[in-house]
Amino acid sequence: MPLIRINLSAGKSAEYREGLANSIQRALVETFNVPEDDQFVLFAEHEPGLMIYNRRYLGIERGDDFVVIQLTVSNTRTLAQKEALYRRIVELAAERPGVRQQDVFINLVEVLPENWSFGNGVAQYVKR
Amino acid sequence: MPLIRINLSAGKSAEYREGLANSIQRALVETFNVPEDDQFVLFAEHEPGLMIYNRRYLGIERGDDFVVIQLTVSNTRTLAQKEALYRRIVELAAERPGVRQQDVFINLVEVLPENWSFGNGVAQYVKR
Amino acid sequence: MPLIRINLSAGKSAEYREGLANSIQRALVETFNVPEDDQFVLFAEHEPGLMIYNRRYLGIERGDDFVVIQLTVSNTRTLAQKEALYRRIVELAAERPGVRQQDVFINLVEVLPENWSFGNGVAQYVKR
Repeated sequence: MPLIRINLSAGKSAEYREGLANSIQRALVETFNVPEDDQFVLFAEHEPGLMIYNRRYLGIERGDDFVVIQLTVSNTRTLAQKEALYRRIVELAAERPGVRQQDVFINLVEVLPENWSFGNGVAQYVKR
Repeated sequence: MPLIRINLSAGKSAEYREGLANSIQRALVETFNVPEDDQFVLFAEHEPGLMIYNRRYLGIERGDDFVVIQLTVSNTRTLAQKEALYRRIVELAAERPGVRQQDVFINLVEVLPENWSFGNGVAQYVKR
Repeated sequence: MPLIRINLSAGKSAEYREGLANSIQRALVETFNVPEDDQFVLFAEHEPGLMIYNRRYLGIERGDDFVVIQLTVSNTRTLAQKEALYRRIVELAAERPGVRQQDVFINLVEVLPENWSFGNGVAQYVKR
């Protein structure tokens, strides 16, 4: 159910991107109770100049491998779960593909469970 | 007012994309009371590897023509309207441009009517 | 904190894009109390046909330089602040880089302050 938009610099390998997507997925499975096979990821690659970001905001030193991860999720998680998700994403992404924790920007957009259709024109998360 | 982001594989024709945009628009007009000329659509094309999605989640068999439709809309619709929208999008997109219903992923992001400006720096949907 | 997605036609100069990003940032600083160095902007350039928009909706005459600005922000602003933001963005973007006010489409997506992590896996906006 999460719809994941990942924005990063152009030129990373497919292995790098898959590693990142899978680290995020594992973090979601562990902290947000997302089913393992509920994975939907959209990458956008940016040429230089098409991603503008401050390299010092809040005292965090961002580098060239800065990545923005915006996750649209159902609004069913606690603050504790969100904090666990952020922590786990940076831990796992540091291992694979090897992203510095300063370079990981995360944002959650929350929606109602009824706001999803995974195919066939049905709102699969509506309880009957 | 809906802002529509469509993510799909690279290589589709302009006719295919227009057909898809227009099918979505017709579904919005029929089910969400969207004015016909209120159409704003952003396409993003993905090269192989830049869109990662599970081909079996919830038992739905997704193929190479998988498309993600994320609609930002005002938060004024009922559950029944949302379910009608999902159904109608897949019906119309199956006709034109010819998308399998298993390949249509839909997500709604709801915002306040005051969160839109259609030009001129004015919040056109705020009632005075 | 705002995460800013700007969609525009391909072919604009880096100077044009920076001018636009900076005008939006200045408007956010002035009307939304956003810190000056809290700037995170993602551009997506569209080839012809990959951006479909009505050129007359609500009587506003949109041209080829139409731009969509979608800002994800914390849900802490008043209606008056939103209206001031829209006005100020079009004023400043008209000056630099020189965008017609009819061509500026703005949408706000609001999220909880706890929905952000700016790096290091921490939810920096959660009050302790």
